[in-house]
Amino acid sequence: MQVIYRVQAMSRDIEARARAIAVEQSVEMPPHALRNRRVSDHILGRVENIVADGPQHHRVTIGLSMETTGFEAGQLMNMLFGNSSLHPDMELIDVDFPPSAADAFGGPRFGIEGLREQVHAGLRPLTCTALKPQGSTIDELARLAGNFAAAGIDIIKDDHGLADQASAPFDTRVCAIQRAVTAANRATGRHSLYAPSLTGGPRRQLAQLQSARDAGVGAILLAPMISGLGALQELTAEGLPILAHPALAGAGRIRMPLLLGKLFRLSGADAVIYPNHGGRFSFSPDLCHDLADTLRAPWPGIAASIPVPAGGMNPERVDELVDFYGRDVMLLIGGALLEAEDVAAAARSFVDRVAAMEART
Amino acid sequence: MQVIYRVQAMSRDIEARARAIAVEQSVEMPPHALRNRRVSDHILGRVENIVADGPQHHRVTIGLSMETTGFEAGQLMNMLFGNSSLHPDMELIDVDFPPSAADAFGGPRFGIEGLREQVHAGLRPLTCTALKPQGSTIDELARLAGNFAAAGIDIIKDDHGLADQASAPFDTRVCAIQRAVTAANRATGRHSLYAPSLTGGPRRQLAQLQSARDAGVGAILLAPMISGLGALQELTAEGLPILAHPALAGAGRIRMPLLLGKLFRLSGADAVIYPNHGGRFSFSPDLCHDLADTLRAPWPGIAASIPVPAGGMNPERVDELVDFYGRDVMLLIGGALLEAEDVAAAARSFVDRVAAMEART
Repeated sequence: MQVIYRVQAMSRDIEARARAIAVEQSVEMPPHALRNRRVSDHILGRVENIVADGPQHHRVTIGLSMETTGFEAGQLMNMLFGNSSLHPDMELIDVDFPPSAADAFGGPRFGIEGLREQVHAGLRPLTCTALKPQGSTIDELARLAGNFAAAGIDIIKDDHGLADQASAPFDTRVCAIQRAVTAANRATGRHSLYAPSLTGGPRRQLAQLQSARDAGVGAILLAPMISGLGALQELTAEGLPILAHPALAGAGRIRMPLLLGKLFRLSGADAVIYPNHGGRFSFSPDLCHDLADTLRAPWPGIAASIPVPAGGMNPERVDELVDFYGRDVMLLIGGALLEAEDVAAAARSFVDRVAAMEART
Repeated sequence: MQVIYRVQAMSRDIEARARAIAVEQSVEMPPHALRNRRVSDHILGRVENIVADGPQHHRVTIGLSMETTGFEAGQLMNMLFGNSSLHPDMELIDVDFPPSAADAFGGPRFGIEGLREQVHAGLRPLTCTALKPQGSTIDELARLAGNFAAAGIDIIKDDHGLADQASAPFDTRVCAIQRAVTAANRATGRHSLYAPSLTGGPRRQLAQLQSARDAGVGAILLAPMISGLGALQELTAEGLPILAHPALAGAGRIRMPLLLGKLFRLSGADAVIYPNHGGRFSFSPDLCHDLADTLRAPWPGIAASIPVPAGGMNPERVDELVDFYGRDVMLLIGGALLEAEDVAAAARSFVDRVAAMEART
């Protein structure tokens, strides 16, 4: 794979610096002390290219062996930026993967088309909302979920702050919420999915997964930068659509279209949530476009992930958002529905606005 | 808990900004729309303090409920910086935990004293080295481990780049390396521990853990920012000392003494590896002091973690490092031993220099 970093360095220093990065992100020891010829030839990173990129900055392309990732998503992160993340003057910009990466990682199991099938949607955008606030009782959350499902919202996800707190322990909560969603689906004939948030270390995550499956949930929410990208990759084997949440993802010097776009997609996220422009966060329209394009761009062997712009959105923006993103998008509106006096009516109005998009050319 | 952020904002804007942070990191919805009184009173974050901190910057202290963490380390990260990490003008500076945090999280199971007992060390610093490079055969790695153990190095860890690659698959590798270390221990009467690196999602991590236990390993290496702090917290129940590696930890706008010091320690790391000053990385002496102090500072109910300065260290620096850190330190020297013509002799000389420290007052 070809890994592109942006590095702050003077021109006279950049070649040595680039060689140091190639070592740091591969064998991590002095190259002259390598005793195994295969390691020098195939594992040691190589400087492929250096170009100036603004005052005292360079773009450095390093060739790293895919073999070093063991084809595991956490280890991939490690090889891309593990130690180099500790250098404050470096950013991880992009990765060009060889075709073999698609086979080895597999990407989203459902992708945009699979998600449309799960919720029985045609060509319209998909809708999504969040159960919140944390601290609510299970009854409150289940009632809210029932209202959202009755309104026909496609995916009802846990707020990413909902974990396994005393106010609404995971097992009981997930069971009650799924029951409310199932009842609403039965009444409407629609196919809303509930996506609980999996948290915790390996044992707890697996226990929650089992419990969620037993409750009959239709999707899963995960924050890969908190749970690890390895967890995301493993979850794809479970046969449930996966929504990825960007919590803790912004703390890095990793370009967002690479991290949330390419890497989350390669690791298997069917849907990727991110802060839309014009909301509570500072992502620019260009960045949002770039990210959405990366999630949906052709990638042989890897299904497209659906972009899920979020963060302070409201139903009045539906038309504008669809103009901006097209119809391969899932619109996530949370707080703005809860602010309405009649939450159920606000949710219905959101669903109706989006349904009207199907008719548009 | 009291959470301190550094925020870029004009004086006239900072109060509103601070309130927005308190909402973002707790209920994540408009406070006026909260319908449950307990949530407004106990879950909604509170602005506790705002002080100017340089031109156009402020330190904002937000009170967040410990209950929202569910006392799970991944969710703790989420509540501290999940969404706010997406704001490029914010840094997470520090957290003051209430006494209840120590009971709930527990911290390191061994700590400095426990580690000393495991390797039968007196008051001298501990020694550590790494098996590398990745890409080596299992035989090469096992032979190296045997040499290091024969030299009496306390903890021999996998290089953090070693995962589960085809060149040295986890199960076979760990078994072979542990056998070499056990044989050397039997010959020397010493107690070197081998710490393999656990990687992957939940299922793979648990399978590796089981395999490592079956092989009889004496410690575990984990990169919590890749595997998740929840994995670190869960591992403490396994009864094995845990070394935490800082891979991917530097990409953030989280102050290092908080992340590697307080949070890794609270989550259970017995030993915390970090780049020392004067090596390949740019940590300053002050930062290293601050980090080491945070790992060892009195914290009722939480054992001290041992600081493990690393990253381009060499045996010539032993005296200087012990002058700097005192004897409650584990010195990690990797590449510099491998560079020596006689690796075993270099390792013995490292061990001897450190052993001589026991005599010093």
